Amino acid sequence: MEHCEDSGLDEKMVPRTEGEIESLIKRLKRIEGQVRGVQKMVEDNRYCVDILVQISAINAALNKVGFNLLERHTKHCVSKAVREGNGEDSIQELMNVIKQFSK
Amino acid sequence: MEHCEDSGLDEKMVPRTEGEIESLIKRLKRIEGQVRGVQKMVEDNRYCVDILVQISAINAALNKVGFNLLERHTKHCVSKAVREGNGEDSIQELMNVIKQFSK
Amino acid sequence: MEHCEDSGLDEKMVPRTEGEIESLIKRLKRIEGQVRGVQKMVEDNRYCVDILVQISAINAALNKVGFNLLERHTKHCVSKAVREGNGEDSIQELMNVIKQFSK
Amino acid sequence: MEHCEDSGLDEKMVPRTEGEIESLIKRLKRIEGQVRGVQKMVEDNRYCVDILVQISAINAALNKVGFNLLERHTKHCVSKAVREGNGEDSIQELMNVIKQFSK
Repeated sequence: MEHCEDSGLDEKMVPRTEGEIESLIKRLKRIEGQVRGVQKMVEDNRYCVDILVQISAINAALNKVGFNLLERHTKHCVSKAVREGNGEDSIQELMNVIKQFSK
Repeated sequence: MEHCEDSGLDEKMVPRTEGEIESLIKRLKRIEGQVRGVQKMVEDNRYCVDILVQISAINAALNKVGFNLLERHTKHCVSKAVREGNGEDSIQELMNVIKQFSK
Repeated sequence: MEHCEDSGLDEKMVPRTEGEIESLIKRLKRIEGQVRGVQKMVEDNRYCVDILVQISAINAALNKVGFNLLERHTKHCVSKAVREGNGEDSIQELMNVIKQFSK
Repeated sequence: MEHCEDSGLDEKMVPRTEGEIESLIKRLKRIEGQVRGVQKMVEDNRYCVDILVQISAINAALNKVGFNLLERHTKHCVSKAVREGNGEDSIQELMNVIKQFSK
């Protein structure tokens, strides 16, 4: 995996591979479809509990995508920062985003 | 608010008003837009942490919709079941969906 | 189960049976022991991840106790309030405590 | 901060300072007291919602201790592992414990 030299990229960022991007997009499109499915359920006046179960499934799917991004970020971008001696800021940023997620 | 007599509706369900449906659809459409926004961020190879912050915002928005549905369900459908002597099943179902949400 | 007539009790409260109290105390004493176990781990300079796993287990045990209390509260106290026509306040209070728990 | 050479310590572990240990013990003793407080509330047949609020406060306090341990672990132990070329295992372990916590 190449490190970022493209000026359009965040310097802290180890760019995603095409495979990673494709896989993420696929999962996000499925999540988008699930959200539209919930709209349909609301329009059809479907039972509250059935809608809640769907929303809970979307949350789980989103958390899974989030967790994978977090894992990849830690393995690539944070590790790189630590090795290059800029670990402190990178780890602080990581902890902040973990805190936000656990809310 | 009328109770359900329409045979297409779940009998346990106190139907949503048009206002409630509109407000839910509006919020779900915004969430759908946020999910598409994250897809764009992934395609543009945007910084992982910025994407994670967005995903965390979507989760919060979804949880808010879920919580409102839960509140309304408890106030209308569960209350109705309790008053009509069918509270036990309705409350068990409520507890199950709360457990699922807190995972 | 008797409804509360003892003036020392919260009027909204359906009192716990002795069996319920015993079972809760037993579980809370185990949790207290787990918390002391973590203190010992900290004093012994045990590995952070092992301590985190223990803390996560305590959280799970506490959530289980909390969920059981919530379930019992809904089945007994909230149902009673709904049947007696005081459901609105009771359900609002329930929703608030669920919101607090899901933080 | 010294790195661990004491054979009794986990090799992956950067030992806690006395100040860190004292502060953690103090917070864990407070949590232990809160758990005993909840036992007293149960014995006194206190209102379910008041107990739930207390349990939710204990959970928040435990999560705060857990988060601090996680932060310190990442800053010290994981960073050290990454710098010494053993980052992969250390980060995998970190991600596993974060996943467990977010359950």
